[in-house]
Amino acid sequence: MNEFDFIAKYLKPLAGKEALALKDDAAIIPAGEDAEYVITKDALIEGIHFLPKTNPADLAYKIMGANLSDIAAMGAAPRFYLCAACLNPSIDETWLSTFTTTLEKIQKRYKVVLIGGDTTRHPGSLMFSITMIGEVPKGMALLRSGAKVGDVVWVSGRIGEAANFKSTRYLRPEPRVELGLALRDIATAAVDISDGLVADIEHIAKASDVKISLQADAIPIATGATVEKAIVAGDDYELAFTASPEMNDIIEKLGFEVTPIGHVLAGSGVQVLDAKNQPITLTKKGYTHF
Amino acid sequence: MNEFDFIAKYLKPLAGKEALALKDDAAIIPAGEDAEYVITKDALIEGIHFLPKTNPADLAYKIMGANLSDIAAMGAAPRFYLCAACLNPSIDETWLSTFTTTLEKIQKRYKVVLIGGDTTRHPGSLMFSITMIGEVPKGMALLRSGAKVGDVVWVSGRIGEAANFKSTRYLRPEPRVELGLALRDIATAAVDISDGLVADIEHIAKASDVKISLQADAIPIATGATVEKAIVAGDDYELAFTASPEMNDIIEKLGFEVTPIGHVLAGSGVQVLDAKNQPITLTKKGYTHF
Repeated sequence: MNEFDFIAKYLKPLAGKEALALKDDAAIIPAGEDAEYVITKDALIEGIHFLPKTNPADLAYKIMGANLSDIAAMGAAPRFYLCAACLNPSIDETWLSTFTTTLEKIQKRYKVVLIGGDTTRHPGSLMFSITMIGEVPKGMALLRSGAKVGDVVWVSGRIGEAANFKSTRYLRPEPRVELGLALRDIATAAVDISDGLVADIEHIAKASDVKISLQADAIPIATGATVEKAIVAGDDYELAFTASPEMNDIIEKLGFEVTPIGHVLAGSGVQVLDAKNQPITLTKKGYTHF
Repeated sequence: MNEFDFIAKYLKPLAGKEALALKDDAAIIPAGEDAEYVITKDALIEGIHFLPKTNPADLAYKIMGANLSDIAAMGAAPRFYLCAACLNPSIDETWLSTFTTTLEKIQKRYKVVLIGGDTTRHPGSLMFSITMIGEVPKGMALLRSGAKVGDVVWVSGRIGEAANFKSTRYLRPEPRVELGLALRDIATAAVDISDGLVADIEHIAKASDVKISLQADAIPIATGATVEKAIVAGDDYELAFTASPEMNDIIEKLGFEVTPIGHVLAGSGVQVLDAKNQPITLTKKGYTHF
């Protein structure tokens, strides 16, 4: 049973309407008359989500980046976070000092503050769970379910850099928070690229009940990466989004590095076409940690 | 360095005002003009917070109980939760089915719904992190910092039952959510008893800048427990609270099992007096998992 079957069978029956049918990476709860909170929670475990002996500064960027990226994908402004940390005997005061000093830098950069959490010592792997809370004007959150037939599919930045585990992009992801905010009135659907371009765009296709067709040679690839590897590699934390073609000019002029890479069609699933418009066969669509 | 020194040195500089100076078990964020959300996050690890091979139904009660109890102590109504689960190869579908079915029962009992989370497989110990969100009318949350000199100190239920790891109270805690709601207009400070009666009441003394004096023979002790063991044992998830003596009659008539056990004085710290009003020397004030 994979993660998605598990969610469908066991977790959906528990989920409130605020969970958006567990189709998005975050839930939405009311925050008064005019606003809503977007809430996401991700656990990161040493040896699974980050390399053993990752230095504390990189680790702070990694765990915050992964969660801020979910907030960015919903078009929300980061506000608050809680952090549960399971530390082990390898963690000394120097480590803690670097880790928390780096968190402070990230808090200033993304305008978010710590509001709580829990720290435990145990003998096992390092484990962090972050709950990140962002705010959006009511009804303005970007969902995965809004893509419309005829929409253009876009991606930010360059894909595949994080496939190199020594790259800055892998070690210190830069969640696209400002782009997410700029897309609130523009995009019909958005997702952050954490599992892999194709896997994450498939989440939009499924949630929106559409087919998405990507042009391989349009995908902006990081230096040193190949398109085949890049489109299935995770951890880039770029945003992929859909928008009406009428928005093309506005999107180009937003001032962000964004590239049109495909179209939304009727149907289901994701296809990647080569230069001759033939579908590329993908062996591995992306990462799942379940 | 203990948990509290760690929090003071490394986490306080990161904390927003919503964190209430990290003195309470939960943070408070605005939820519009008239309401606030109370948010708490606790991680529970196999072998530290619960016994290895705990059955999935007891485990569901344990992890939800610990977090619902924090919400109860703030006088908030539970609304939403997120759950990060790190599962290992010992977890099969029968386990998952029992675990999630039990969560569903607990959700109905406490009127709370799942809104998100994260599931990971790893080879290590079972680990769960719950983020629990409750709602209170604005300004009505019970804090640890409100105790006043002259207040009476109360405790709910009977203390020390959970010191027996085979007791229902230990295995399936019953967070005092309804009592917490009833105390909103009545109590000046409240805390849930998770670390131990004396340790938790000391949180009130410290946050309120007062001294608290308890009468040992007034403390309601569970059958089979001794007062010495009971007052330092954790996991009871009863509520301790302070209130003006003018509220005594109202509190007695609330319909909950509550007992006056001491008074709030000027000064600092917690003392426990024996029948001759001599202070009892405590060797261990309560549990800390750091």
